[in-house]
Amino acid sequence: MTQHAFDTAMALEPVAPGRYAGRTSEAYWNMVGPFGGTTAATVLRAILDHPDLLGAPLSLTVNYAGALAAGPFEVQLQPVRTNRSTQHWTVGILQPGADGQPVVTTTATVITAVRRETWSLSDTPMPKVPPPQEVPAVAFDRKVAWFKQYELRPIQGELPSEWHGGGDSSLSQLWMRDAPARALDFCALAALADVFFPRVWLRRAIQVPVGTVSITVYFHASAEELAATGQGYVLGQARAQEFRNGFFDHSAQLWNEAGSLLCTSHQIVYFKE
Amino acid sequence: MTQHAFDTAMALEPVAPGRYAGRTSEAYWNMVGPFGGTTAATVLRAILDHPDLLGAPLSLTVNYAGALAAGPFEVQLQPVRTNRSTQHWTVGILQPGADGQPVVTTTATVITAVRRETWSLSDTPMPKVPPPQEVPAVAFDRKVAWFKQYELRPIQGELPSEWHGGGDSSLSQLWMRDAPARALDFCALAALADVFFPRVWLRRAIQVPVGTVSITVYFHASAEELAATGQGYVLGQARAQEFRNGFFDHSAQLWNEAGSLLCTSHQIVYFKE
Repeated sequence: MTQHAFDTAMALEPVAPGRYAGRTSEAYWNMVGPFGGTTAATVLRAILDHPDLLGAPLSLTVNYAGALAAGPFEVQLQPVRTNRSTQHWTVGILQPGADGQPVVTTTATVITAVRRETWSLSDTPMPKVPPPQEVPAVAFDRKVAWFKQYELRPIQGELPSEWHGGGDSSLSQLWMRDAPARALDFCALAALADVFFPRVWLRRAIQVPVGTVSITVYFHASAEELAATGQGYVLGQARAQEFRNGFFDHSAQLWNEAGSLLCTSHQIVYFKE
Repeated sequence: MTQHAFDTAMALEPVAPGRYAGRTSEAYWNMVGPFGGTTAATVLRAILDHPDLLGAPLSLTVNYAGALAAGPFEVQLQPVRTNRSTQHWTVGILQPGADGQPVVTTTATVITAVRRETWSLSDTPMPKVPPPQEVPAVAFDRKVAWFKQYELRPIQGELPSEWHGGGDSSLSQLWMRDAPARALDFCALAALADVFFPRVWLRRAIQVPVGTVSITVYFHASAEELAATGQGYVLGQARAQEFRNGFFDHSAQLWNEAGSLLCTSHQIVYFKE
């Protein structure tokens, strides 16, 4: 069986305790570096493979300090504190710099947790939207490779087809999943949380240079629930909060088809002009 | 002039490059450790004092790995990458453990940025609420010391006066500022972003043990705008998104009286039962 391109993109080789060698993927290439969702997923992958792991992902923050160059990189991670039911990780991704010295491209912190059943309640019900089968998939004729690795069925707030400067909303809702389909897990969910195109493009209907600076994902679902979601679609919703002096933030929610909120996410993004 | 208790709580002494000695504050004591807002503010304070600082705070993530014990602590920080207009910091707070070895109580990542004027737009207008002068300040008869360091004027979603188990919303809106009043700056704003009492107490009207695990703040305002806000009130709004198996998250916004969105924040919180 051929490995899914997403798993190839996240593939890591242990080189020493807490150090893993990886390589950027052409299939998930963005404009000047890899798709940030793949980078976030790779951070999680390294932690999930670590022999000292306690529990499952609860919180993930990835800071994009600089674009990764095409080629090899190293993930360095450390469980800096392990409590009875939570574990705190610090992570860095490094590449050789121009002078041969390692350069930090990415920093991250991750919290994993052993969870048990408690009183639970969703305070953000899934919006009423048509089922994925009734929403056409978009065929993107885009030069960005990673877009082709996703099946995207926009309900509202799709990528403008004309850059006319007349946008009036920053809200997007879409069904999405890996293409080809792949069973959902924490890594795939972390990447899906970064699929939303920049809110500034939607709100202004003007395409300006952008780059995510930091993303946070809070995981609400268990591994079992993700497995049960399988190759089903995930409903993503994202909306900007503030555009100000070169940066904007957005807030996002991702539900499965059964209406369960799998994760919530926020990010802050650089934009030019 | 006597120093404000908030500045005393954040006071740091440089002990080596990138290492600062601090001490927990009784005035901002919470139940089993310091108020998390003070810890977040102290992280920012150390960075703002660092000689290599570039720009102003843009993004702050603080992970509460364990409660700080009353007494001295050390902040260790490093600018791991400095770009033309952004700078990436990693931070740890350490205390001596039972065996004398240092224990990590807190990890954090911070991004600072040099910002310039661009097209800007608020996509989250301030809700229509009465002005602070028309909203009575609450007098808390609470054992938690840090609550007394804030003047709080709740508009809706105040701390339940009876724990009757019949909550129906997780939305809070309140005017707030330091008590005694203190001119607003990045550190004070970071602390204000953590003032919201746990959403689970409000939504259930049941008081269960809780603890913030991670908080992120995105700063939209400049130092000049914070200075202009001065000793004015800040409108805080917080709402939970999901309560699930021992953890819930909330999303929050903070505006000044002029209606400018100063920062947005989210956090994930442990709860028992």
